[in-house]
Amino acid sequence: MSTRLVLSDTGAKFAAWESAFHKAAPELGLVHDEPSRDLSGIRYCMTWKPLPGVYDRMPDLEALFVLGAGVERFLADAAIPPRVRIVKMAEPGLTQAMEHYVLWQVLDHHRRFWELEAAQREARWIDQTYPAPWERKVGVMGLGALGEAVARVLRSFGFDTRGWSRSAKAIDGVTMFAGAERIDAFLDGLEILVCLLPLTAETRGILNADLFRRLAPGAGLINVGRGAQLNEADLLSALESGQLTAASLDVFAAEPLPPKHPFWRHPRIFVTPHLAADVDPESAALAIQRQIRRFEAGQALEHVADRTRGY
Amino acid sequence: MSTRLVLSDTGAKFAAWESAFHKAAPELGLVHDEPSRDLSGIRYCMTWKPLPGVYDRMPDLEALFVLGAGVERFLADAAIPPRVRIVKMAEPGLTQAMEHYVLWQVLDHHRRFWELEAAQREARWIDQTYPAPWERKVGVMGLGALGEAVARVLRSFGFDTRGWSRSAKAIDGVTMFAGAERIDAFLDGLEILVCLLPLTAETRGILNADLFRRLAPGAGLINVGRGAQLNEADLLSALESGQLTAASLDVFAAEPLPPKHPFWRHPRIFVTPHLAADVDPESAALAIQRQIRRFEAGQALEHVADRTRGY
Repeated sequence: MSTRLVLSDTGAKFAAWESAFHKAAPELGLVHDEPSRDLSGIRYCMTWKPLPGVYDRMPDLEALFVLGAGVERFLADAAIPPRVRIVKMAEPGLTQAMEHYVLWQVLDHHRRFWELEAAQREARWIDQTYPAPWERKVGVMGLGALGEAVARVLRSFGFDTRGWSRSAKAIDGVTMFAGAERIDAFLDGLEILVCLLPLTAETRGILNADLFRRLAPGAGLINVGRGAQLNEADLLSALESGQLTAASLDVFAAEPLPPKHPFWRHPRIFVTPHLAADVDPESAALAIQRQIRRFEAGQALEHVADRTRGY
Repeated sequence: MSTRLVLSDTGAKFAAWESAFHKAAPELGLVHDEPSRDLSGIRYCMTWKPLPGVYDRMPDLEALFVLGAGVERFLADAAIPPRVRIVKMAEPGLTQAMEHYVLWQVLDHHRRFWELEAAQREARWIDQTYPAPWERKVGVMGLGALGEAVARVLRSFGFDTRGWSRSAKAIDGVTMFAGAERIDAFLDGLEILVCLLPLTAETRGILNADLFRRLAPGAGLINVGRGAQLNEADLLSALESGQLTAASLDVFAAEPLPPKHPFWRHPRIFVTPHLAADVDPESAALAIQRQIRRFEAGQALEHVADRTRGY
């Protein structure tokens, strides 16, 4: 059996994936899904926006590789049988893209580069001061593969970095907080907050007025988790009152963000169209190849989502 | 003799320096220069914009610590006796600020974040693709303390990084080129060029049409060297023709940039008012303290400018 891995995705650029797998993992025999295609006998699938009925057409599916960050849609999909392992994406292309995005946004807040852009529009040569990075309190909520990588990068860039996660972790040089009872201590006086949480019942609406009040006055917010984690009305009020200075948002409750949405034209909300981090086909091919090799050698898959926790 | 170090600077915030030296190096007895103040007997001075006659008033001056990047003004100043060592600033605050600035600009070019800002103004949810960083050719011209630090950071962020300097150097993972005869090879196909050269007879006007033609079509330029290194008319033509896509400029032939200058209103020139990197008083105090301790123990000062080379 030479064809062993299906790409079932309505949005993916198949040519890029085919070329990446041809180069990195030709032995996996990548197959492009098509409506009604019979995929029986194939045990592996990768997807972000699956084609209709793909799970019915894959009776032998064992592992589903999710081609993006965030697996909540798949965990909630009753069409996926419980035996199927839902595998979160962890590959250097995705991680590095997220590091780049968040660092760019953190530097934008830290150095107020957006103030310089406004000054340029008025041809004003302004002066500006900023604290040393080690005096700047930056925090990352959510320390999965991406959150941990981002916290490490912020630390390596000299920031006074904190991390918060549901269960206790350790990252060199980062002040760590774990669990609901430590979130207030984590938030206290933070000047830049990065949200990289998974979407669960506990994190829905977590970015709200109560949380904003615990940050330093005039803090900046960067949301690269999920849109449903943000209370949009509370954000607008916090920017209005000065509790927050600016927000960078890559994810939204409704995507694409509707043309009339007030975020588009807010001078201190930076909207990016959910492209903080994409999977890189070549490095993803290598990561999936490694996972399948492990699995076929009888080892456990890594980064398998936990249906009980919800991520 | 308790007072040993003079701050002679028309622009410096003396309170910040006084507090930094009080905390980090109280034994240096910082003195604020004032017009006509007698400074005889004092051997050390730090300055960026010196007060009138300070060198005449410091007959015992041995080392002049320059509070910024670039020493060409001091090397050209006939009022500074040849015996005075002109010391370039190398301190972690300045270096980290430059790393932050350049990385922010490189990411802006790499990810075309400015395109997203333009899309936001029109409430357009756009798609965007970008190469993996290891497929992006980025080059740093000038590998002094700042250039070397920047090249290392770009490499650590995954970029395909090259470096060019007058004399041969080695930086782990960075493809190195040295000397005038290797500059074409360095430039060939570069997609993002960072200039961190010192200003000398050889580097004046080096960023010109001939250089731009050697880069990849549509390349981005980041100038954090000196304004006199850029041929302004050539830049405008290269942007017009599409040879260059965008330029980020922190330094200008005339500063402040005159209000009527075309750079201010060019949609693909990002003007920042010469604040890419400032010296941090606290970490600079520690660096100067360390230098003076070395010097008084009979060791050579580090980072002394070379009057023959011109930097």
